[in-house]
Amino acid sequence: LSINIDFIAHKAYQLRRLSLLQTSHAGSGHPTSCLSAADIVATLFFHIMHYNPALSNGPDNDRFILSKGHAAPLLYAAWKEVGVLTEETLMTYRSFNSSLEGHPTPRFPYFQAATGSLGMGLSIGAGMALAGNLDKRNYYTYVLMGDSEISEGSAWEAVEIAAYYKLNRLIGIVDCNGLGQSTHPMYSDNIAQRAKQFESFGWHALQVDGHNIAELIQAFLQAKNNLDAPTVIIAKTHKGYGLPAIADKEGYHGKAFTHEQLAIFLRQLEQQFPHAAHYHEKGDWYPPMPKEKESNCTVSSSSISLPLPTYTQGDKIATRKAYGQALSLLGSYVPTIVSLDAEVKNSTFAQDFEHSFPDRFFQSFIAEQNMVSMAVGFDRCNKVPFASTFGAFFSRAFDQVRMAGIGRARLRLVGSHAGVSIGQDGPSQMALEDIALMRSIPDSVVLYPCDAVSTYNLVQEMVRYEGGVSYLRTTRSDTSVIYKNDETFVIGGSKVLRHSAQDKVCVVAAGITVFEAIKAYDELLSCNIHISIIDLYSIKPLDVNTLMRAAKTSNNKMITVEDHYRAGGIGEAVTYALRNTDLHIECLAVDHMPRSGEPDELLAYEKIDSKAIVELVKHMIA
Amino acid sequence: LSINIDFIAHKAYQLRRLSLLQTSHAGSGHPTSCLSAADIVATLFFHIMHYNPALSNGPDNDRFILSKGHAAPLLYAAWKEVGVLTEETLMTYRSFNSSLEGHPTPRFPYFQAATGSLGMGLSIGAGMALAGNLDKRNYYTYVLMGDSEISEGSAWEAVEIAAYYKLNRLIGIVDCNGLGQSTHPMYSDNIAQRAKQFESFGWHALQVDGHNIAELIQAFLQAKNNLDAPTVIIAKTHKGYGLPAIADKEGYHGKAFTHEQLAIFLRQLEQQFPHAAHYHEKGDWYPPMPKEKESNCTVSSSSISLPLPTYTQGDKIATRKAYGQALSLLGSYVPTIVSLDAEVKNSTFAQDFEHSFPDRFFQSFIAEQNMVSMAVGFDRCNKVPFASTFGAFFSRAFDQVRMAGIGRARLRLVGSHAGVSIGQDGPSQMALEDIALMRSIPDSVVLYPCDAVSTYNLVQEMVRYEGGVSYLRTTRSDTSVIYKNDETFVIGGSKVLRHSAQDKVCVVAAGITVFEAIKAYDELLSCNIHISIIDLYSIKPLDVNTLMRAAKTSNNKMITVEDHYRAGGIGEAVTYALRNTDLHIECLAVDHMPRSGEPDELLAYEKIDSKAIVELVKHMIA
Repeated sequence: LSINIDFIAHKAYQLRRLSLLQTSHAGSGHPTSCLSAADIVATLFFHIMHYNPALSNGPDNDRFILSKGHAAPLLYAAWKEVGVLTEETLMTYRSFNSSLEGHPTPRFPYFQAATGSLGMGLSIGAGMALAGNLDKRNYYTYVLMGDSEISEGSAWEAVEIAAYYKLNRLIGIVDCNGLGQSTHPMYSDNIAQRAKQFESFGWHALQVDGHNIAELIQAFLQAKNNLDAPTVIIAKTHKGYGLPAIADKEGYHGKAFTHEQLAIFLRQLEQQFPHAAHYHEKGDWYPPMPKEKESNCTVSSSSISLPLPTYTQGDKIATRKAYGQALSLLGSYVPTIVSLDAEVKNSTFAQDFEHSFPDRFFQSFIAEQNMVSMAVGFDRCNKVPFASTFGAFFSRAFDQVRMAGIGRARLRLVGSHAGVSIGQDGPSQMALEDIALMRSIPDSVVLYPCDAVSTYNLVQEMVRYEGGVSYLRTTRSDTSVIYKNDETFVIGGSKVLRHSAQDKVCVVAAGITVFEAIKAYDELLSCNIHISIIDLYSIKPLDVNTLMRAAKTSNNKMITVEDHYRAGGIGEAVTYALRNTDLHIECLAVDHMPRSGEPDELLAYEKIDSKAIVELVKHMIA
Repeated sequence: LSINIDFIAHKAYQLRRLSLLQTSHAGSGHPTSCLSAADIVATLFFHIMHYNPALSNGPDNDRFILSKGHAAPLLYAAWKEVGVLTEETLMTYRSFNSSLEGHPTPRFPYFQAATGSLGMGLSIGAGMALAGNLDKRNYYTYVLMGDSEISEGSAWEAVEIAAYYKLNRLIGIVDCNGLGQSTHPMYSDNIAQRAKQFESFGWHALQVDGHNIAELIQAFLQAKNNLDAPTVIIAKTHKGYGLPAIADKEGYHGKAFTHEQLAIFLRQLEQQFPHAAHYHEKGDWYPPMPKEKESNCTVSSSSISLPLPTYTQGDKIATRKAYGQALSLLGSYVPTIVSLDAEVKNSTFAQDFEHSFPDRFFQSFIAEQNMVSMAVGFDRCNKVPFASTFGAFFSRAFDQVRMAGIGRARLRLVGSHAGVSIGQDGPSQMALEDIALMRSIPDSVVLYPCDAVSTYNLVQEMVRYEGGVSYLRTTRSDTSVIYKNDETFVIGGSKVLRHSAQDKVCVVAAGITVFEAIKAYDELLSCNIHISIIDLYSIKPLDVNTLMRAAKTSNNKMITVEDHYRAGGIGEAVTYALRNTDLHIECLAVDHMPRSGEPDELLAYEKIDSKAIVELVKHMIA
C-alpha cells in the first residue's frame, strides 16, 4: 500500500471543513471536538482501515467506534468523503427528519455503536473483537475516545478485560485535546501519564502527535503488529486545531459558530492548510478491501424450536437453574449464542453454558458495565448475547442498558436473586427496582417466570425476540414445577392458574408470589372463598385482554402481589393498563426497606405473602 | 505506642473464631472471605486506628470502610473485641431482628457505609477524606477491598480522583486472597501487577504479606507518612487462611460450615494459632484516642430559611440556572453544603456555587459513580452534598444511588437536561427514565419544578429534607417565571394553576409540560372549554388530596402529561394513586424512541405538546 500523505491531509481538511459546516448549519454541536480528531479519523478511514463501503455492516470490515459520540459530524463527514453520503445529506445533521443525529444512533446506516454517554466504546469494541476471534475473522476494531471520557470507570473495565483476552485486534485511540466541557481533563497535557496507566493494565501504548499523519500511520501499523496485547495510541492533539483564534481555548466546547464566524473560520482553515485545501483528488478512491470470509452458516434464531422440557410437576427447582439448563441446551441449536458473566456464574447458573460451550462463554469479572457493553458489541456482530448477573447489579450497568436500548441492541439479560425472597444476604443483594428499570427501555420485554417449565420456554422466546432488549428475572430459591411440559408461553402472555364461576377476587402474581397466591387460594377455599389466579410471567408487554377478562369474571376485584418495590412495578403497570374500568384494584408490593432474615419472614414483613393476600381478599369482599 | 504483636495476633485469632461462629450459626455468609482479612482488620482496629469507641460516629475517629461488605462478620467481630458488642449479639447475625445484617447497613450502630455492591468503598472513603480536609480534622480513612472487586470501574474512578486530590489520609487495602466467587480474580497471584496499576494512577503502593502483622504495621505506618498522595497496601493473603483443609481451595466462597464442620475447624484454628489462641489479655484495652477537635459550629440545615427570591413573572430563565443561583445563595446560609460535579458544571450551573465557594466545590470529572459515592461519604461526615449532572447520566450511577438509599444517605441529586425537550443532542443526552429510577428508592423525594421561583424554593426544601435521597429534575431551555416570589412550595405539594367552576378536564403537568398545558388552556378557552391545570412539582410524595379534589371539580376527567417515558413516570404514579375512583384518566408520555430535532418537533412527535393535550381534552369530553 503506497502512502499518499497529501491525500490523507486533504481528507482531514475536508473533515474539518465539513464538521464546521454541519455544526454551523445545525446551530449546535461540537465543532472543536471534531477538529482535534480529524487527522486521526482521516488516517483511519483513508489509509488504515480495510472495508467494503458497499456493505454498511460487512462482517469482515474493520470497525470504527466513535466513543466520543459528540464528534458525530466527523463520522458523518468521513462517510461523505468515502462517497456514500452527499454533502446535502450532511447539512441535515441534527434535524428531525435526518438520520444524522446529534450523537450516532442506528438510524445512521453506517452506524456501529450508539454513543453519547461516554466511556462505553472500548467495551463495545472488545465485544466486537471477541466476536471476530470466535468467527476467525481478521478485522480490526478501532475505538476513538476523548481524554476526558476515560475518567469513566467503565473505560478501565474494558481496558482490563481487553488485556485479559489479549485482544490485539482492538486498537484504542485517545484524542488528548486537553480540554473537556467545563474544565481540563485529568493529566490534560501529560500523555505519558495516560500511556503509563494503559501499560500498567497490560496494553501497549504509543504516544504520538495526533496531527502528524505520518506519525499516526506509523503508530497504527505498529499497533497492528502487536500480537500479544491490545494497543492504545495516545495522541496529543489540540481542541479546535486548525483555527488558531480558538484552538486550545476554554469556552468553545459544544458551541457551534454563527454563519459570520463560519465564513471567517473557513478562510482561516484554508490559510492553515493551503496545500491540503487545494489538493486535487485524482480519479476515484476506494478503501483497501478486507479479505472476505465465507459467511458463517447461521441458523435463524427466530425460528428455533427446542424439544419439550422434561421436568416433573411438583419437583422443586430454582428458575435460575432452569435458565442455565435451557441456555446450555439452546447453545446446541443456536451456534451464535454467547454467554457473558460478571463472576457470579455459579449463582446465575450461566456456568452450565460455560461447561457445554467454553469457547462461547466470556468472563467479564466483577464489571457489569463492561459485560453489558461487550454484549452490545457481540450483538452488532450477529451473535445472540445472554448476559447474566444478580438482578440488583444490572442497576450498576443501567446506563449501558439504556444506551443498548437507544442502539436497538438485541441484548438478552438475565437477573437472578430477585426480591426480598433471597433472605439473609440483605437489601444490597436484592433486585427490587429491576422491573421498573427494564420496563423503561423502549421496546423492551420483561419476563418473570415462576417455575422451571415457564423459564425454559421463555428463555427460548428471548432468543426469538429481535425487537430490542429482553430481560428475564429469576428467583434464588427452589420453587415447584407447576406447569406441564407441553404448556406454551409467549411474550405478552399470562396463565390463568385458578378460575371458577364463583371467583370473588383475581390475584395477579409473578415469580415467587405465584406460590403465595396458590397458598392463599387453598386457605381461602377452606373458608369457601374462591379466587382466580393469574401468573403474569410477561410483565412487558402485558396480557391486557386476559387481565380484563379475569377482572370481569372475578367480581371486578383484583389484587396484584409482587416481590419488587411499588414504584414502576407490576401493580402500577397493571393499574395503569386497566385504568378507566370499574375495577377495584389493590396492590401488594415492597414498601419498607428490607433487611436480612428468613425469606418467609421478609415476605411477611413486606406484606406480600399468602397471609397478606388472604387478609386483603377478605377485606375487599367484606 | 508500644507494639504488642501477640495481642494483635490474638485479636486476629478471635476475629477468625467469631467469624466462623457467626456464619455457622446463621447458616450462611462468607467465612473464608473473613479469614483472609482477619490479620488486616485486627492490625487496624487493635493497633493502627485512633478512635473513641464511645462515639460511634465520632468526628475525629479514624474511619474504617468494609468495601468487601460480604466480610461483615469480621467487622462485627472487631467491634465485639473492641468491647461494644456481646458475643450473644454476634450470634444474631443475619437474623430478622438483628442489626447485624448480611452486609453492613445503617441498622448497625458502628456502621460507616452500606456496602455489598462492590467497588464503592474507595469513593465513599474519598468523600470522607475530602470532608476531613475541609474541616481540618486529622482522621484517616481506611478502605478494605477485595481483589475481585477492583475489577469494578468505579474503583478506578476513585483511585484517579484520590490521586488528583492528593488524599494522603485515604489508605486503601486490597485483600488479595486470589479467589473470587466463581473463579480467580484477574492477576490473582500477581500482586506486583496490582501495585503497578495503582502507581500508574499516582498512588503509593506497598506490597505485603497480609498475614504478617509486623509487616502490616510497618506498611500502615509508612502509608501514614506519605504526605503527597494516597497509599494502597496490596496484601497477599489466602482465602480461608487458618484452615489448611480448605485454604486457597475453590468452592468455598459464601459457604457457611455445618456445625459438625465448625467443631472440626475451630480445633484446626486453635492448632494453627496455638499461641494466639491461648494468649491472655491483661486488663482492659482501649484504642488510641484521636485528638478531638472542637465541633464545628454548624447551622441546622432543617431550619434554614432563605430570603424570598427576586424573579420577575414573565422573565425567562431555565430551572437549571435557578438551581445554580439558589444553591450558591444557600451556600452562605448553610456552611456544610458541598457541591459535586461530573464535568458539566456549566450545563447544570453548579458553576455558580463553585464561583462563590471554590473550597466546597469538588470536581469528580466524567465519573458519575464516583461523584455519587463521594457524596455519600460527605453525608456521613455531616456535610450536605448536592451532586449534579445531566439527569440521563444518573443512570450511570444508579447502583450507587440505590446503595445510598440502603445506607440512608441524605444525598441531594440534581439532574439537568430532562426529557425530549432538550432537542438536537438526541436521545443519549435526554433523561427519560430518571423519574422511574428515583421513585424506586425507598423514602426518596422526586421534585420537578417548572420555573425559577419554584426551583429556588425546592432547592431549599432539599436542604431541609433529611429522610433520604432527594432528586430535583431541571430543564435545559429557558421557561417563563410563573410564580410570585412569595409563593410557597413544599415536598409533597402541588399548585392549582388554572381552575374554574366549569372545568371539563384536569390537566396534570410538571416541568416543561406545564407550559404546554397553559398553551392548551388558552386554546381551549377560545373554544369555550375550561380545564384546570395542576403543576405537580412534587412527584414523590404525591399531593393526592389536591389531585383528588381537582379531579372531582373537573368533571372526573384527568390528563397527565410528562416529558418522560410512560413506564414508572408521572402518569402511572398518578393513575395508581387515584385508583378505585370513578375518574377517567388518560396519560400523555414519551412512547417512541426520541431523536434529534427541534424541541417543539419532539414534543409534538411524542404527543406531549399543547396540541396533543387539546386533542385529548376534546376527545374526552366528546
